[in-house]
Amino acid sequence: MSFTPKYLRKAFRLAEKNIDKGGGPFGAVIVKDGAVIASGVNSVTCNNDPTAHAEIVAIRKAAKKLQSFDLSSCEIYSSCEPCPMCLAAIYWARIDAVYYGSTKNDAQAIGFDDSFIYEELKLDNADRKIKMQQYLSDEALAAFTAWDNKTDKEVY
Amino acid sequence: MSFTPKYLRKAFRLAEKNIDKGGGPFGAVIVKDGAVIASGVNSVTCNNDPTAHAEIVAIRKAAKKLQSFDLSSCEIYSSCEPCPMCLAAIYWARIDAVYYGSTKNDAQAIGFDDSFIYEELKLDNADRKIKMQQYLSDEALAAFTAWDNKTDKEVY
Repeated sequence: MSFTPKYLRKAFRLAEKNIDKGGGPFGAVIVKDGAVIASGVNSVTCNNDPTAHAEIVAIRKAAKKLQSFDLSSCEIYSSCEPCPMCLAAIYWARIDAVYYGSTKNDAQAIGFDDSFIYEELKLDNADRKIKMQQYLSDEALAAFTAWDNKTDKEVY
Repeated sequence: MSFTPKYLRKAFRLAEKNIDKGGGPFGAVIVKDGAVIASGVNSVTCNNDPTAHAEIVAIRKAAKKLQSFDLSSCEIYSSCEPCPMCLAAIYWARIDAVYYGSTKNDAQAIGFDDSFIYEELKLDNADRKIKMQQYLSDEALAAFTAWDNKTDKEVY
């Protein structure tokens, strides 16, 4: 599929309406085979869920609808360039393409931390503002060894 | 709080038990004021939810329990170094510290894409393997302008 303006405009309308409902100014729709299969709006404050960005909400709904964690052949239209959480979720979901309107810098200009988090993720763990420490690495590998040895696992 | 081994070992046990239940080999617990307030296991395949990594599941539960999207003064113990989706979620949730056992490279060695996604996020949009394109940037800003002008918004 190529870019289709009406789906991005739908994401814009969702974002605008969500402000009136007390949510953040972000909306997203997921399209498969030329039809919208799911949409989402930022529900962080309304639902007390820091992960409830528009794209995450839409991905979770689309996966539930398709009864699959694999959204290959889907495309996401987001009112804003996805933050690192949402972009990584898009990779995990194997979505084909991302079409967006405003940028992470636009989001930063109105008070959202998208650009800051992108910069943090580029750094080594020790250089990040958040404390990140590895411990008990030998014990940790037991789970991975068990997974690696399991013959009937569902790989994803 | 400083690192407390028993919480990380709890995350390891959750990861190991989750394999037997058909899930991925990942577990996480969130600690506040010296007590576990939430835990999570990877439920991607079991729940058909590509966002259901252990850390995301634990964050959503902790936020629901505290009735707040702000998990300041909480720490997360994860069996594995968080992937970019989970680490960004940790930033959004304002968690204070991350303690982990195995690394993103260990995860990659048993077939998980954590390292690949970290590398992709460092690139400019045009250089990524996924198609990312900006359109209708002027129209997109209407939502952000409305947000910026709103006086009674809940900032986060």
